[in-house]
Amino acid sequence: MNLENYIRDILDFPKPGIVFKDITPLLKDPKAFREALIVMEDHLKDDTFDYFLGVEARGFIFAAALAARMNKGMIPVRKPGKLPAETYRKDYTLEYGTAGLEIHKDAIDKGDRVLIVDDLLATGGTVEAVALMIEEMGGIVEKMLFLIELDFLNPREKLSGYKIDSLIHC
Amino acid sequence: MNLENYIRDILDFPKPGIVFKDITPLLKDPKAFREALIVMEDHLKDDTFDYFLGVEARGFIFAAALAARMNKGMIPVRKPGKLPAETYRKDYTLEYGTAGLEIHKDAIDKGDRVLIVDDLLATGGTVEAVALMIEEMGGIVEKMLFLIELDFLNPREKLSGYKIDSLIHC
Repeated sequence: MNLENYIRDILDFPKPGIVFKDITPLLKDPKAFREALIVMEDHLKDDTFDYFLGVEARGFIFAAALAARMNKGMIPVRKPGKLPAETYRKDYTLEYGTAGLEIHKDAIDKGDRVLIVDDLLATGGTVEAVALMIEEMGGIVEKMLFLIELDFLNPREKLSGYKIDSLIHC
Repeated sequence: MNLENYIRDILDFPKPGIVFKDITPLLKDPKAFREALIVMEDHLKDDTFDYFLGVEARGFIFAAALAARMNKGMIPVRKPGKLPAETYRKDYTLEYGTAGLEIHKDAIDKGDRVLIVDDLLATGGTVEAVALMIEEMGGIVEKMLFLIELDFLNPREKLSGYKIDSLIHC
C-alpha cells in the first residue's frame, strides 16, 4: 500500500504559496490508517521508551493511536492556558514572532524516555522546542517519529543529535 | 481497576467555580489508558458504524485510539479555519456567545454511520452541534461515547434521541 496516495496536497493553505499536506483521507481509510500505524510501530521496534508525547492538536492523533497499539502512556503538550494543573512552559521563535507550549510539570520524571510523534516535520521549530522542554525537565528524547517529512525545508539541520524517522518524504 | 482514581479534580480551572476533570494521569498510565479503551470498546460491541469522529483537541485522543484498536477510520472535527479542504461549518450557541465547528465536506457520505467520542460530556452543547452537523450532511449518529459524564449538568436532556454511553459519572 502506498500511503502517499492517501495524502492530498491543498494549495495555498493556510496562506498563499504554501502546499498543505492533508492527512484526513489517510485517517478516514481504516486500511491506510492501520498501515501507517503498523509501519510506525515497526520503526520503533528497537527503541526503549515510556511514553508517547503528542503536540496539540494533530499530534494527539498518532500519539494516542500508537500508545493504544503498543500499550504505552500518552502525554499531551498543549498551547498555553489549556492544561489545568501546574505547567512547565517553553517559548520559542517562529519565522514570524514567537509561540509557547506547555506540559504538566508532573508529566516527566527525571530519566523518563519519551517518543515524540507528529504527523508532519516541516521546519522542525516546534519539535525542537518540545525536545528542549523535555530535556530541561530531566527527560530523554528517545526518537522523533513523523508520518511526513518535508525534506526541502531541511528540518534535520536544527535537529542534529536526535534520532528521526519519517514514513513519507516530500 | 477503578478508572476514577486516574482522573483528578483541578479547582477553579479554567475559571473560578469550575472543577476541571483532568484526564492526563489516565492517559499517562498505560494500564489505565488501556483499561479505558477496553471498556469503551465493550460499550460498542453491538453498534454498527463506519468512523470514529473526534472533536479538536482532546476528542482526537480517544477517537484515534479507538479507531486504531477497532480498525475503523477517524474523522476530525475542528475549530474554524484549521481544516484545509472545503468544509461544512456549524455555528452554535454557548452559555456566553457562539462557537463554530468545521468538518471536511467529503468526510461524510449519505448514510455513513459515525460514532462520536470525547473525553467529557458536560452541558452537551458541542456534541449536539456535531450531531446536527453530521445529520445535515446526510450521516447517521450511531452513538455518543464519553469517558466522563457530568450528570449534574443534565446533558442528556438536550440529547434525547441519541444513544449515549459514559464510563464514569460525576
